[in-house]
Amino acid sequence: MISRTTQLAIELINRRSVTPEDAGCQTMMADILKPLGFDIESMVFHDTTNMWARKGNDGPVFCFAGHTDVVPTGDVSKWKTDPFNAEIIDGYLYGRGAADMKGSLAAMLVATERFVNEHPQHKGSIAFLITSDEEGPFINGTVKVIETLQARNESIDWALVGEPSSTHKLGDIVKNGRRGSLTAEVTVKGIQGHVAYPHLADNPIHKAAPALAQLATTHWDSGNEFFPPTSFQIANIHAGTGAPNVVPGDCYVQFNFRYSTEVSADELTQRVAQTLDQHQLDYDIQWTYNGSPFLTANGELLEATKQAIEEVTGYATDPQTSGGTSDGRFIAPTGAQVIELGPVNATIHKINECVKVDDLDVLTDVYQRLLEKLLC
Amino acid sequence: MISRTTQLAIELINRRSVTPEDAGCQTMMADILKPLGFDIESMVFHDTTNMWARKGNDGPVFCFAGHTDVVPTGDVSKWKTDPFNAEIIDGYLYGRGAADMKGSLAAMLVATERFVNEHPQHKGSIAFLITSDEEGPFINGTVKVIETLQARNESIDWALVGEPSSTHKLGDIVKNGRRGSLTAEVTVKGIQGHVAYPHLADNPIHKAAPALAQLATTHWDSGNEFFPPTSFQIANIHAGTGAPNVVPGDCYVQFNFRYSTEVSADELTQRVAQTLDQHQLDYDIQWTYNGSPFLTANGELLEATKQAIEEVTGYATDPQTSGGTSDGRFIAPTGAQVIELGPVNATIHKINECVKVDDLDVLTDVYQRLLEKLLC
Ligand SMILES: [Zn+2]
Ligand SMILES: [Zn+2]
Repeated sequence: MISRTTQLAIELINRRSVTPEDAGCQTMMADILKPLGFDIESMVFHDTTNMWARKGNDGPVFCFAGHTDVVPTGDVSKWKTDPFNAEIIDGYLYGRGAADMKGSLAAMLVATERFVNEHPQHKGSIAFLITSDEEGPFINGTVKVIETLQARNESIDWALVGEPSSTHKLGDIVKNGRRGSLTAEVTVKGIQGHVAYPHLADNPIHKAAPALAQLATTHWDSGNEFFPPTSFQIANIHAGTGAPNVVPGDCYVQFNFRYSTEVSADELTQRVAQTLDQHQLDYDIQWTYNGSPFLTANGELLEATKQAIEEVTGYATDPQTSGGTSDGRFIAPTGAQVIELGPVNATIHKINECVKVDDLDVLTDVYQRLLEKLLC
Repeated sequence: MISRTTQLAIELINRRSVTPEDAGCQTMMADILKPLGFDIESMVFHDTTNMWARKGNDGPVFCFAGHTDVVPTGDVSKWKTDPFNAEIIDGYLYGRGAADMKGSLAAMLVATERFVNEHPQHKGSIAFLITSDEEGPFINGTVKVIETLQARNESIDWALVGEPSSTHKLGDIVKNGRRGSLTAEVTVKGIQGHVAYPHLADNPIHKAAPALAQLATTHWDSGNEFFPPTSFQIANIHAGTGAPNVVPGDCYVQFNFRYSTEVSADELTQRVAQTLDQHQLDYDIQWTYNGSPFLTANGELLEATKQAIEEVTGYATDPQTSGGTSDGRFIAPTGAQVIELGPVNATIHKINECVKVDDLDVLTDVYQRLLEKLLC
């Protein structure tokens, strides 16, 4: 016997929705939500398909947030199954998106079905904010939907993002915030020349090395109760013509900060500039702001989530802010409380992505319990 | 009136002998040398054509050494002339190879013609060691010819390499040695990961940066009377997947030493290893030995060259060891005295390569005077 959540997860996985494709996932979701009383709005921005579905006109607004798109499969020959033809093997459901995050979408749908059927007169509103570009450049997805909602003064009180937050067992960890992300591209300039005439050249790699060494060992902050210390990582460095006898004219470096609420993006950019200037580098720098840190430290949503997990699973959850970014960073700045809760993330973005079938049913129960706690 | 040296230089330039092509240059040279009493040996190794020509069976052996190949033209549309159709404009002969080193080859031929005609009973031997891969990977050129000569116990006492040694006027500088050249390719190993989980990754750029900074500022030696200080230059560095959120698994670095006789290649490799080990790097390193330093500090060849230049031009020359490598590094280890003397090098390997027409005639006179001093 396959549960309804598992059945819906299979139907979603079998749709080949590699970013920014939705491949009909949102239409399938809408077909389930419409009979429950949801108003469906499809918001298409360029190549991205988004859905805003809402049942109820009053506050508070509880919103399930997520994405139908998936990352590419990688080498299909290394998969034990067809990544777009979901299969259950030894209690695990295999397929691209099983854990990130079509399993969560299925659980949201079934939890909502059950809750609306049992509590047709619930208070407030239930909403779904679903995009097809979460794994992509996050330009035409949640960002644009939030802009549209804000323009008409429609707000979200509580957002439950279905990202796979769990590490060992379902619900052991929820994310109640995320670090900020800030990327820089630096070009350190020198003077090209021949290695045999070093006095006529000015080696930009030699100039950059001590500055990079200093940045790599800088203590940016100590983090705080909710955030790990800010981390700095150089992701790319390139210089050289390929020839072994040419001093290159410039050196390209790209690095990324994941930062806590103890520093601001402005402070980080200033401190980097100070270091580069201190080493007397001639450079261009371009910053990309990927999202500020956010935190849902306490409030009804975190409290209800903790209780729902403990009541369904028997164990306590651990709220954390570590790990990668999610679309929660675009919802939190509106003032919404934001929690991420989804399946175990061990296989996401990998070959043979899978999720424990039982976990999908537990997740459905937790989502349902959360709706009951907040909207009954 | 065009001089015979200029005429021969034009005929050589018009042959399209881009490395490793000889394009008939050596045949043309042989056709001039044969009637003078030279025995001609063509030595073809793979794609490279070499010529060993010798007149006389006795020692001492004076050898003109050089190459018929030229570097590519670069963007032909930027040339004021066809690079393979030599033209004289305002007293300068333009064309690829005019200065490096077809002008020198023409001067060697004419100096030899005159000398042999005036001194048919000269002592010792005159030889030509000509290759077509000097500008290339130096595998099948001078190296192989020298190996062949050594295998049959044929030795060179004095080698005059026609590389363009002059900087402002003909003969102002001769090269009486060259620094050694040593290249390393290092792969610093780390652990690939996601920037959001820095504790699971080990950033090889962060690990390499302080070691590279230290190598770049290391004082390797102070040089000596004949050599400038040993110099270290990083020519290439590459790390990163291109993605801004991935810590790369390794970092590739290529660097080059130009080193004096104050250090050995072994000492440099050991000191580099010490620095890398001191920074506790996990790395692979591969060294390429491009040639040891050599020096012709004194002796008949340098003395005769100095006198010949001063007698012909009226000014003194300056022996130096700076600048790039040449095939002299393969001849010197046999015990030969080696001097490089050729035209002004301002335009070599560049668009609009050219040589002053008058300088070719002065160079011919200097080469002839040198033969007279050594073999009369
Ligand atoms: Zn996701
Ligand atoms: Zn040359």
